[in-house]
Amino acid sequence: MNDVTLPAAPIAWPTGFRAAANLGFDLDSEDVALTIDPGTRDRLSVMSHQAYGALTGVPRVLDLLDRFDLKATFFAPGYTVERYPDLLRRIRDAGHEIAHHGYLHEAMAGLSYAEEAAIIDRGIESLEKVLGVRPVGYRAPLWETSYSTAEILLDRGFLYDSSLMDSDLPYELAERPGEGARSIVEIPVSWALDDWEQFAFVPEVFGPGVIEDPAKALSMWTGELTEAYRYESCFTLTIHPFLSGRLGRIRALESLLETMAAMPELWVTTCGEIAEHVRGLDLVPRVFPQPDIPER
Amino acid sequence: MNDVTLPAAPIAWPTGFRAAANLGFDLDSEDVALTIDPGTRDRLSVMSHQAYGALTGVPRVLDLLDRFDLKATFFAPGYTVERYPDLLRRIRDAGHEIAHHGYLHEAMAGLSYAEEAAIIDRGIESLEKVLGVRPVGYRAPLWETSYSTAEILLDRGFLYDSSLMDSDLPYELAERPGEGARSIVEIPVSWALDDWEQFAFVPEVFGPGVIEDPAKALSMWTGELTEAYRYESCFTLTIHPFLSGRLGRIRALESLLETMAAMPELWVTTCGEIAEHVRGLDLVPRVFPQPDIPER
Amino acid sequence: MNDVTLPAAPIAWPTGFRAAANLGFDLDSEDVALTIDPGTRDRLSVMSHQAYGALTGVPRVLDLLDRFDLKATFFAPGYTVERYPDLLRRIRDAGHEIAHHGYLHEAMAGLSYAEEAAIIDRGIESLEKVLGVRPVGYRAPLWETSYSTAEILLDRGFLYDSSLMDSDLPYELAERPGEGARSIVEIPVSWALDDWEQFAFVPEVFGPGVIEDPAKALSMWTGELTEAYRYESCFTLTIHPFLSGRLGRIRALESLLETMAAMPELWVTTCGEIAEHVRGLDLVPRVFPQPDIPER
Amino acid sequence: MNDVTLPAAPIAWPTGFRAAANLGFDLDSEDVALTIDPGTRDRLSVMSHQAYGALTGVPRVLDLLDRFDLKATFFAPGYTVERYPDLLRRIRDAGHEIAHHGYLHEAMAGLSYAEEAAIIDRGIESLEKVLGVRPVGYRAPLWETSYSTAEILLDRGFLYDSSLMDSDLPYELAERPGEGARSIVEIPVSWALDDWEQFAFVPEVFGPGVIEDPAKALSMWTGELTEAYRYESCFTLTIHPFLSGRLGRIRALESLLETMAAMPELWVTTCGEIAEHVRGLDLVPRVFPQPDIPER
Repeated sequence: MNDVTLPAAPIAWPTGFRAAANLGFDLDSEDVALTIDPGTRDRLSVMSHQAYGALTGVPRVLDLLDRFDLKATFFAPGYTVERYPDLLRRIRDAGHEIAHHGYLHEAMAGLSYAEEAAIIDRGIESLEKVLGVRPVGYRAPLWETSYSTAEILLDRGFLYDSSLMDSDLPYELAERPGEGARSIVEIPVSWALDDWEQFAFVPEVFGPGVIEDPAKALSMWTGELTEAYRYESCFTLTIHPFLSGRLGRIRALESLLETMAAMPELWVTTCGEIAEHVRGLDLVPRVFPQPDIPER
Repeated sequence: MNDVTLPAAPIAWPTGFRAAANLGFDLDSEDVALTIDPGTRDRLSVMSHQAYGALTGVPRVLDLLDRFDLKATFFAPGYTVERYPDLLRRIRDAGHEIAHHGYLHEAMAGLSYAEEAAIIDRGIESLEKVLGVRPVGYRAPLWETSYSTAEILLDRGFLYDSSLMDSDLPYELAERPGEGARSIVEIPVSWALDDWEQFAFVPEVFGPGVIEDPAKALSMWTGELTEAYRYESCFTLTIHPFLSGRLGRIRALESLLETMAAMPELWVTTCGEIAEHVRGLDLVPRVFPQPDIPER
Repeated sequence: MNDVTLPAAPIAWPTGFRAAANLGFDLDSEDVALTIDPGTRDRLSVMSHQAYGALTGVPRVLDLLDRFDLKATFFAPGYTVERYPDLLRRIRDAGHEIAHHGYLHEAMAGLSYAEEAAIIDRGIESLEKVLGVRPVGYRAPLWETSYSTAEILLDRGFLYDSSLMDSDLPYELAERPGEGARSIVEIPVSWALDDWEQFAFVPEVFGPGVIEDPAKALSMWTGELTEAYRYESCFTLTIHPFLSGRLGRIRALESLLETMAAMPELWVTTCGEIAEHVRGLDLVPRVFPQPDIPER
Repeated sequence: MNDVTLPAAPIAWPTGFRAAANLGFDLDSEDVALTIDPGTRDRLSVMSHQAYGALTGVPRVLDLLDRFDLKATFFAPGYTVERYPDLLRRIRDAGHEIAHHGYLHEAMAGLSYAEEAAIIDRGIESLEKVLGVRPVGYRAPLWETSYSTAEILLDRGFLYDSSLMDSDLPYELAERPGEGARSIVEIPVSWALDDWEQFAFVPEVFGPGVIEDPAKALSMWTGELTEAYRYESCFTLTIHPFLSGRLGRIRALESLLETMAAMPELWVTTCGEIAEHVRGLDLVPRVFPQPDIPER
């Protein structure tokens, strides 16, 4: 069996900061329902539920970020980019980072190298054509990456991925074990710092059927943030505007930003800025050898 | 790909009001169990669970509304109307609005135009025959509408629908893209403002198996209400008397009404009144073009 | 379609009392796992989980009831009675009511009249043989009764059933519509007043996978109790000692009993006592006509 | 039907202690995902989620235990031992107990005697080869033991098992009914004292889809601990570092340890120490006869 490398190293943050935080808005729209069940195309109510993000949630999020003078990262499926081009341009023009989040929010598990690469290419094409943006960051739909993803991304000039879950700290990830491997910056995510598991529900499409109180999510996220600050770590929150754009939830997000604002040495910035900082640290890349399944 | 129209416009509420709220009581009874699983017809306990609304919950709700001097909207499946005619007459005679909620609480997804229209006709017939009421409002069972629903409703003289989820604000919804389209007023709903996801449970019939504390639901709903008031929006709550008529839950609803009563500029009224007000604003109808599914 | 009768009438409680409460302990043990999946017989851990009630939970419950000087009703499947005879005798000798809860905690849905009757007879036989008790009360396993259950119970001399969910108040239930029908006292239950939905979990056997904090259950139940007292109603709580006998949960139950003890006009007694009181009120029996399913 | 033996006897704890507590860290890693779905081998994100424990969580746990000067028990699948040998050596060298937790976190239900024994042997082999440790304790993967497990363990020199759920107190468990049976010490567990049900989630692999607030888990566990102290019982907590190593959750665990530290007569120690103490009490072994399923 292969051995595995060491844990992520502590990060020296820019002068004046003891910890970092980033806000990632996943711009899933009709795409995420259509990819799970194409039959939802005929269900106007389901489509309207998914459109809430673009039509109502994102404008609210942009106002909120503006009020706190923060820049965030918007991970956009190509389909959303093409369906809501004006909204995406507004996000871009407000100075936020726009990154890659698949094309139709595809489930990538089990795909071949070529299939995964084709989807990533299609997403790049949407971002370039509609927005003139060449993304440097990628967050896989469903956070589902393969052992080929890093190579596919590096071949296309990406600086960072944000889909893995083995650490709280960013690190350099080797594209494969062995000599001569390139590396990509990884900014890890966490299911506990994702609004999907707290709020997502469309009957027979997704969600467990329980919808949580924003007060609970706020308690969880504030708890993580407080400890990230204490541990000199990196707080990476994933928000879906079609979920968290709703009024009670946007208020919870506002409360979280108030807590952030009260942390004098917290560096709140985009994933892209964090990735550039990490790249500058010249870290030794980590390797994740694919595990073998033992024979019985 | 089709472009989509702008978000819902802000609403100028009647003089003296900064925000609106409506209480919608979905009168699902035995019908909702029978339509999911006809075998529940032989299960007396399940039938009794569904009858709680009509036999116990609704009278309690009517007393509560009377105490707060409020008018609400009762969305009634035709089956419930025929099974509990005296109760429905009592609701009507108390001055509340009675609106349409299907016939047997049918799952509309995948139905043809003719099938959907036939169900809507059958519901109208029940309301007219038993109550002499011609409904102007519709809330789809399971909030499941198609791209034909608006046309079906407009052909039958409806003023409003309340089943979509792309906004917090009411708006005019075009029945289809293109010239000459009529429009219907839409009063959007939200899964987070529905007691079903908090309380519904009948083993092997519906519900995730988790039953929530009314205190949690009250916290969520009060949070949404507070922000709706702040954002000059519209608070639309969906309550099922077979669920929320239970004692601890009716107390939570009472608390919510107390909070509403303390908001001096909140217009608490029926969906019908809100729809008429919105109709008078002469808004530009919005269009929801049906999305295409991209080829791979 | 058949019309349905009026809701349950208010109950005049015995002099000095404004409301009633009863504690029902469902003595489900190995039986409830074996009946869902006979393969659990070979899974010692699952069997031990089910045995917690008899071995640990019930003794704790008996001590608690003794400390508060309360009598409760224990609904016992015949299988539990035969497997834990000494424990059942101890319950009986402490003066608590022992009632019927099926034989192997059978799922009754879809059974024929003869099959349902045979199970009820087998449960009676166990109670008579092991304990010398002829039960007057019945609570169906899974609260699953048919349109035949009342007749089966009345033929065997039962006074009451406690499995329906259309009311908070006890009432007289006609065994069938029409002249000459006998009636049985019904003491309704509620999924929200059952510890199963809060605590039950055996992987791949039962439970949604979420295990709740006893503090949440206590909040829900105290809320219901408080309102039952206010509404002059009947609080009927269902507890499974294999779940609620655990230490943190027994503490929650203790807190609830403390709240009860502080309600001077609350009649806390057995289901049997309540049923006898209700029988003495000479109420008009209610009828639940079986609903028809409309043709499409 | 076989009768069953008496409940576990009260335990006389060592002088100066009124109750006991142990912290068990289940070192499930990639193995638990691979055994549920071998296809997860190709899903880097899933693998990284499982690696969080070894790479990030366990070092944090070790620091925490060191700060509180506590010794704990680490239940390690053989696969984890072989994949992370340096980490396991670090745990061993810090003086913690290392016990057996299967090889690939196998689901043992339905296995033959020989299959179960082979898995246990393979786990022993890993522990001996990599760490030079011969384990005396066993906690079954998924807490799934058969009626053969005790015999298999005793044949291999184990002192204790920790997988059953019929009691809060440790006891001697007879390997089988009848004369001449040996016994093993059992330290029972509880689903309510396991972080898995509160936090575990990998889409389509495990978890109900609800992720709880560490504040809720802390409330539950503190409640159980408080009562265990009051009842002179044994508090047995199961923690998975790939779940509870996350920052907000490690803070909850820290709070729990603070509560423990404030209980002057609480014996916080390893499962092995508790088992040795129990062995010294010379208790009468308990028997769990396998239940029969009655014929219908």
